[in-house]
Amino acid sequence: MSETIVQKFGGTSLGSVERIDAVAEIIKKASKKNKIAVVVSAMSGETNRLIDLANSFGNNPDKREFDALVSTGETISSALLSMALHSKGIKARSFSASQIAIRTTSSYSKAKILDVDAKKILDVLENDTIPIITGFQGITEGGDITTLGRGGSDTTAVAIAAQINANRCDIYTDVDGIFTTDPDIVSNAKKLDSITMEEMLELAGQGAKVVQTRAVEFANKYHVPVRVLSSFNDGSGTLISLKDESMENALVSGIASQKDQVKFTLHSVGDIPGTAFKILGPISEAEVEVDVIVQNVSIDGKTDFTFTVSNEDQEIVKKILSNIKDEINYKELIINPDIAKVSLVGAGMRSQSGVASKAFKALSENDVNIQIICTSEIKITMVIKEEEVEKAINVLHEEFELDK
Amino acid sequence: MSETIVQKFGGTSLGSVERIDAVAEIIKKASKKNKIAVVVSAMSGETNRLIDLANSFGNNPDKREFDALVSTGETISSALLSMALHSKGIKARSFSASQIAIRTTSSYSKAKILDVDAKKILDVLENDTIPIITGFQGITEGGDITTLGRGGSDTTAVAIAAQINANRCDIYTDVDGIFTTDPDIVSNAKKLDSITMEEMLELAGQGAKVVQTRAVEFANKYHVPVRVLSSFNDGSGTLISLKDESMENALVSGIASQKDQVKFTLHSVGDIPGTAFKILGPISEAEVEVDVIVQNVSIDGKTDFTFTVSNEDQEIVKKILSNIKDEINYKELIINPDIAKVSLVGAGMRSQSGVASKAFKALSENDVNIQIICTSEIKITMVIKEEEVEKAINVLHEEFELDK
Repeated sequence: MSETIVQKFGGTSLGSVERIDAVAEIIKKASKKNKIAVVVSAMSGETNRLIDLANSFGNNPDKREFDALVSTGETISSALLSMALHSKGIKARSFSASQIAIRTTSSYSKAKILDVDAKKILDVLENDTIPIITGFQGITEGGDITTLGRGGSDTTAVAIAAQINANRCDIYTDVDGIFTTDPDIVSNAKKLDSITMEEMLELAGQGAKVVQTRAVEFANKYHVPVRVLSSFNDGSGTLISLKDESMENALVSGIASQKDQVKFTLHSVGDIPGTAFKILGPISEAEVEVDVIVQNVSIDGKTDFTFTVSNEDQEIVKKILSNIKDEINYKELIINPDIAKVSLVGAGMRSQSGVASKAFKALSENDVNIQIICTSEIKITMVIKEEEVEKAINVLHEEFELDK
Repeated sequence: MSETIVQKFGGTSLGSVERIDAVAEIIKKASKKNKIAVVVSAMSGETNRLIDLANSFGNNPDKREFDALVSTGETISSALLSMALHSKGIKARSFSASQIAIRTTSSYSKAKILDVDAKKILDVLENDTIPIITGFQGITEGGDITTLGRGGSDTTAVAIAAQINANRCDIYTDVDGIFTTDPDIVSNAKKLDSITMEEMLELAGQGAKVVQTRAVEFANKYHVPVRVLSSFNDGSGTLISLKDESMENALVSGIASQKDQVKFTLHSVGDIPGTAFKILGPISEAEVEVDVIVQNVSIDGKTDFTFTVSNEDQEIVKKILSNIKDEINYKELIINPDIAKVSLVGAGMRSQSGVASKAFKALSENDVNIQIICTSEIKITMVIKEEEVEKAINVLHEEFELDK
């Protein structure tokens, strides 16, 4: 029986007229067996061209105008891909976020999807036509254009897959799938055939940039299986499965890392209820994503509160923390931008102990100092010096025999 | 008292970051005294870039997709101009055709404006904010994007001026105003300070490409005074006035010409009621604009029916005429693409005779043969050989002393 599949193509997959033509072939082939809905990013280079234009008028362009500007990138690629399909005799129609009412919050450049007009998409599919939908963008209640932030097209694709009850969301990229770690850092990194949603969620959050974090969260929440594969090479990619389908989970499935982080430590704050909220509340209101959060046991009612954010949010967080200094009454603010995160992820950690100590031992034997440790059920995150990231990953990849 | 003025800026006026900045200065200056609403074209070069992309997928891209594609050009320039104004401390907001509901017919690439949400624009103006509106585009009842055809931004500007009861519509271009004839053909052509709407209508229709014909028609119909001026040089431009404000109209105000025309003659058709409609009905349905139409007196109940259309419509008109051959029963179809039109325009012709014969005499003395003559109250149109256009214009410009 025919399935309904959402296919998403990123910027490099659509980077030229020839690439758009190649993508049209992939869609044509898939549409012979299944009903296909497509989500597209802007052609690679286009978004940067638009951002450069915007920056000609100052470093801080109005966010509403900025979003209206950059959203044109996806409108262009959706119309062109639709034309490419027509030239192959396939029925297709482009749709902007406004045309299928991808409603979002009004946080320009960081908007979150609230709703999608599934009926419109289903009507098009019913008509044996392939809808080519602009990713990355949405509209507010008032009809203003928003964007979801970089990588947001993945989220659009999964959200649409969820709303139209698609059987799967195929995310086409320029890599062959998910690897045990970054092949640029570890030469014998291996492609995984499948990975659990939880593992992927942890990996994505930690800088495995193949699929956007929020997209995986959406997939997890709405039970949409996601497959990551290449639009450049044939291959089955990596299936991000809903359940632990393998009998036995790997102890460690992969290693992720993330640079461009900054660590904030509020030294000597009162360890009283509400402190964490008082610190993180205004930061979250400013739509800054806080990553690792660590608070150690208190001594004499005082503790150190540490968290990391993306480098680009450093200034705004500094400002917020200075605004709430009197309320929080911290002694000192320590900012360290020279850090990176390395994470081990594996669903098998749940039932096996000793992974953490094995990792710490291997790193210490190789003179990598661990500044912060933070563990969850299936993940161990370590904050280390930025310059030691490559060494740490290679050590861990070998220690846990991920090349085998 | 403060007036409300719609300012329209074309592609060359917005052709670079520097030009956009210069336009923002013009708007800033004007906004000190008056309420300003702005309509923009795409940055010059952008529309052609998009058309080239579209043509990569065949010569005849789907018109719905084509319109969605090229409409991004104006979205980009409206957002950028808005940012440029912000950088000068001026409040501005960009609006797409969809956002202010510029409703059009669904003839893609040749859509006609039906309605505009004036209230939305007035609300923005009320808020001391300058709306920067995308020209050239609209939306259908069903929410699909349309475009008005090249030059359509002028029409958008005049339509908006009409709907919000603006005091004037200023159309900024790369020329200083309307001239007695093309300064490239006649070196001492003179800029006119004012011209009547009727004269402009005749001139625009005959290839004086400074303002789009439909825009002048709109201006005429809704009584919107239009001023044409340069965004590159200071100057008062040419005012296209609603009434004959000068005491005495010039005999001949200007000379227009148009190449790229093709002449169709249906030889020996029956001179019976309905013939003209049977010929022109299906051509008009195909959205082809017919220009000069001439039918001479009949001899023995048979006549010759001649009309001209733009070269680009030649194939479609041929096809239509071949479809209706049996119904019309013409003897022969004569197609001549080697023609051009030259027109003398002047409100003074109404009360003065002898203009036509003076023109014919001057041309014949210079060996220019006139194939077709067609006159209206304020215009004399002559169809001549394409290669003789420059000569004819110079002869007429001198004959009617337009350089004085």
